[in-house]
Amino acid sequence: MTGFVSFVGSGPGDPELLTLKAVSRLKAADAVLYDDLSSGPILEHARAGADLVAVGKRAGRPSPRQDHVSRLLVDFAATGARVVRLKSGDPAIFGRLEEEITALRAVGIPFEVIPGVTSATAAAAAALIPLTRRLTARRVQFVTGHDATGALPADLNLPALADPFATTVVFMPKRTFPALVAALIAHGLPPQTPCLLAENVSHPDQRLSRETLSGLAATLAAQASVTPALIIYGPLADGEMS
Amino acid sequence: MTGFVSFVGSGPGDPELLTLKAVSRLKAADAVLYDDLSSGPILEHARAGADLVAVGKRAGRPSPRQDHVSRLLVDFAATGARVVRLKSGDPAIFGRLEEEITALRAVGIPFEVIPGVTSATAAAAAALIPLTRRLTARRVQFVTGHDATGALPADLNLPALADPFATTVVFMPKRTFPALVAALIAHGLPPQTPCLLAENVSHPDQRLSRETLSGLAATLAAQASVTPALIIYGPLADGEMS
Repeated sequence: MTGFVSFVGSGPGDPELLTLKAVSRLKAADAVLYDDLSSGPILEHARAGADLVAVGKRAGRPSPRQDHVSRLLVDFAATGARVVRLKSGDPAIFGRLEEEITALRAVGIPFEVIPGVTSATAAAAAALIPLTRRLTARRVQFVTGHDATGALPADLNLPALADPFATTVVFMPKRTFPALVAALIAHGLPPQTPCLLAENVSHPDQRLSRETLSGLAATLAAQASVTPALIIYGPLADGEMS
Repeated sequence: MTGFVSFVGSGPGDPELLTLKAVSRLKAADAVLYDDLSSGPILEHARAGADLVAVGKRAGRPSPRQDHVSRLLVDFAATGARVVRLKSGDPAIFGRLEEEITALRAVGIPFEVIPGVTSATAAAAAALIPLTRRLTARRVQFVTGHDATGALPADLNLPALADPFATTVVFMPKRTFPALVAALIAHGLPPQTPCLLAENVSHPDQRLSRETLSGLAATLAAQASVTPALIIYGPLADGEMS
């Protein structure tokens, strides 16, 4: 008997930002494998008796290895279970979806992907700003602030990221943001470019702070915090509209 | 008496991709102003007796002017109504949110923004592909294929869009895509770059087609269709994973 895996975007954390389809998959699931940011009240949609398995990374705890998560997925599905793999935000965006899809394909387990609200647009919504604007912000781009080792990725396209006519969203940026900002300024992005730091987006303890690019880099360089965060920079980030 | 406006992302069209929060705002609304792509079953969540007002653009019909939409929003809210302004996809992404926010701010009407599932990630989910991958697609970017006149925007950042290590999603690309592809190839993007054309994403008549960049440009140059569509190009668009 072959099971079925639903990769489900849980949105940024607010349980009200689940989609109806996510809720229906959770209600039908025999097993739910979830990340830290898609836990709490979101899991209350799962039926009593479903297996709920935490597979996320937590600050200060060793992270389950990716191949371990893939093996768990395969093992649950192989029992014939309907498995929900909850991914915070949208699974296609920095969700490491590919490793898990590849593992399922290797053994012929069918799956689907249910998109979710990405924390990038949830942060924009919370700040009451659009990410695009005719003429001045025609392009929006998402990048991660770190590679697998936790360092600033060496192969970033810095000219693209230093474009003053784009909105850029940096996922999980905090440790490496000062180094990124130094590189962006070296590539011509003005230090006064508006920046929005969004922490715990859509959670009750959400915090939004506006600073300039260089100001936020200085602030973060002095912090040790690892709160889940993203940073939006570009002409729209200050919320001042023409 | 001052009303309240909720800008609500309705997702790509599948009513099951509404968020719980979108449904709750629709149920509470006195008036719903909606785009074409957020109509149909989505509107069934509105209560009986709510004013339902179509303000979208339809192919072949003159589009309501943006200032007319803004005035409608203000007029409804000024009666004390709870107004939902439904925007297809996510309101922050090519949703022309700013004009309407500016109009509300000018007269002091409070508002909120509820994010939604963008059609970019819904298309990726339908195609079972991620938009990012470690090392080979570290950046994802969204652009529109046309400016206010319907032409390819003159100020696109072509080097950024011709980056072979990014995933690019072009919204509403069909008329101008051949011209964009010519420019991308001139900037060094290989003509064989994988492309995914996603039409009517998440609707019952959804259609996904895979071609190369140059192949899809040739196909679209020969078509007159204006089906709502987006195009994803980059190393992940062919769904072949390592």
